[in-house]
Amino acid sequence: MIGRIDDERLARALLCRVAEPGEVGLARRVAGEGAVATVEWLLSQPPTTPQRRNWNERIPSASPERDLAAASAVGARFVIPGDAEWPDQLADIAMLPAEYAAIPFGLWVRGNLDLRAACARSVAVVGARASTAYGEYVASEFSFGLVERGWAVVSGGAYGIDGAAHRGALSACGDTVAVLACGVDVAYPRGHSALIDRVATTGLVISEWPPGCSPMRHRFLVRNRVIAALTKGTVVVEAAIRSGSLSTANRAAGMMRHVMSVPGPITSTMSAGTNELLKQPESVCVTSAADVIEVVGEIGTDLAPLPEMPTDPRDGLDSTTRRVLEAVPARAAVGVARIARTAGIDVISVGRSLGRLAAGGFVENVDGGWRVRREST
Amino acid sequence: MIGRIDDERLARALLCRVAEPGEVGLARRVAGEGAVATVEWLLSQPPTTPQRRNWNERIPSASPERDLAAASAVGARFVIPGDAEWPDQLADIAMLPAEYAAIPFGLWVRGNLDLRAACARSVAVVGARASTAYGEYVASEFSFGLVERGWAVVSGGAYGIDGAAHRGALSACGDTVAVLACGVDVAYPRGHSALIDRVATTGLVISEWPPGCSPMRHRFLVRNRVIAALTKGTVVVEAAIRSGSLSTANRAAGMMRHVMSVPGPITSTMSAGTNELLKQPESVCVTSAADVIEVVGEIGTDLAPLPEMPTDPRDGLDSTTRRVLEAVPARAAVGVARIARTAGIDVISVGRSLGRLAAGGFVENVDGGWRVRREST
Repeated sequence: MIGRIDDERLARALLCRVAEPGEVGLARRVAGEGAVATVEWLLSQPPTTPQRRNWNERIPSASPERDLAAASAVGARFVIPGDAEWPDQLADIAMLPAEYAAIPFGLWVRGNLDLRAACARSVAVVGARASTAYGEYVASEFSFGLVERGWAVVSGGAYGIDGAAHRGALSACGDTVAVLACGVDVAYPRGHSALIDRVATTGLVISEWPPGCSPMRHRFLVRNRVIAALTKGTVVVEAAIRSGSLSTANRAAGMMRHVMSVPGPITSTMSAGTNELLKQPESVCVTSAADVIEVVGEIGTDLAPLPEMPTDPRDGLDSTTRRVLEAVPARAAVGVARIARTAGIDVISVGRSLGRLAAGGFVENVDGGWRVRREST
Repeated sequence: MIGRIDDERLARALLCRVAEPGEVGLARRVAGEGAVATVEWLLSQPPTTPQRRNWNERIPSASPERDLAAASAVGARFVIPGDAEWPDQLADIAMLPAEYAAIPFGLWVRGNLDLRAACARSVAVVGARASTAYGEYVASEFSFGLVERGWAVVSGGAYGIDGAAHRGALSACGDTVAVLACGVDVAYPRGHSALIDRVATTGLVISEWPPGCSPMRHRFLVRNRVIAALTKGTVVVEAAIRSGSLSTANRAAGMMRHVMSVPGPITSTMSAGTNELLKQPESVCVTSAADVIEVVGEIGTDLAPLPEMPTDPRDGLDSTTRRVLEAVPARAAVGVARIARTAGIDVISVGRSLGRLAAGGFVENVDGGWRVRREST
């Protein structure tokens, strides 16, 4: 390894390799002084903490040039703050509680879309890996509806809800971004290697970890802040009470993003987390892609239609006429006086109402009496 | 009929028969001047409106004594404002928009409980007639849980959710009140005649309409304000987008009562109304009887337990130790240096963490290397 790096991109690539992304102390130093100065500081003096010692131990075997070449071999690039396609909204990560506040050193980006443009109008659709058919249906429908209206769908590439979200977007030929907790060249989960390749072909597969890195449990939680930060809001489709996707929702709330939750049966463990979320004041109940767009969309650009209301022809009737209709029998026809007594309305008003009802096809006159017209009920 | 009534109870019973309960003009006059004076006013001068003409036309054939006797024959009484068991909270009905603001002339009450006491700690559990198995399960579970904790369940006696709510309460030997839109001696719906009899035996069956009155469509909407007014809050379990039970929720909100809604699958028509309700700021998402009590209960009297969280033994570990555990392989045991490299943590800290993990039964030492203990995963 080189004793000194004077290129900011190489220095940031080096830091991805020697320090775990998400290390907030280091990230803050990089944000303040730049990565070149940070690497210089690491090398310049004997490490004072076990953590720094560990970073320094890793520097000799690290090679950012090799990582950049490995990325390039799978069609990936390394995007850093200051690049034209760096998404500025990632700066909001600094708003989070200290343990999550590390702005990424950079992002390894595989795919042909411009990262900044792809995420400009994007929504995170996330949820349980152990999802149900209900959740997968909802995730796929929401994503389909979102990309149809020009929104990109960001998710985590995992089994279950994440996979359904990516697939829904792909099936509508829309933009989708998978944010991984491993290298962009690592097929994880293995069963999603074809899906992740498809996402990389038409959308983007991105990660904070350099090529070859494998996913580890703590990396998923670190990764979630990036999903939340890239998007205008996070929709949790299904989640158990204690679930990683709820952490994405928490990060979103912490960055003043919209938190949306899909209701589900209270008898389903996989909806326990989303229903619990609905009890929180900061989260919004969404039941369609249109709802999501109404929440995240800018006024004037996106408008959700009202939910469909079945129309009842009786709605057009005034209350007296409705009451008269209720008093008209369905079978044997009866006289006006009888209807007036049943309805508790005077005979003259009843006569007037019956005229209206007959004109509207609600009642019919049979042998001088009135009954409900068969077809109208 | 008598030309003059000087008994307030008889006068109110008369008004129940000649005027449709829910007539706000008449109800306001009764509230202001009493029923005796109101009947006198009706009889004293020629009617000036078709409505008044209709009321006067009905007076000759009305007989409050006969209605009271008919009530008595089925074990019912006629309770009016001022009676010891009159529920004072019904006065809040006057807060509603004019068309719903009629305070009942009185309530026909069938059953042995004290009406005021039964409704003092009560919740309305209502919903669709065309309910699903999910909704019926939820209604029955909620009611069971509510009466177990000393709350009475008020509902409308209808098929579907209402019936399940009453049954849930009865099955826990709890108090339940059916508020009908017909006479308390009328078995409606017919298929619920046994259920309504059971409710009358251990709980209460009540109505604004005198014995013998049949249910008419508009009466259900009028009735709903009483369900909302008697209770501390209304839980809608299942409802289509346009549904009578949503009107009960609206009345509850209009009287500053709690409005609660049970989430359901967004794919179910019968949950479309409840999920829509969850989007309204005035409604609260509830997923258990404990949730309901947390909303309606007075602080100090009722406490809901927190939702059950599955506990993960790893939760007790600090973040370094958790990260070390992630780096320990499941199969072939490896050395400390290798684990330190994978975890990105210095060797000394890793050694300390491995000690903790071994003590906790998470890892085991095999031939000088470390691997995850089989039973722990």
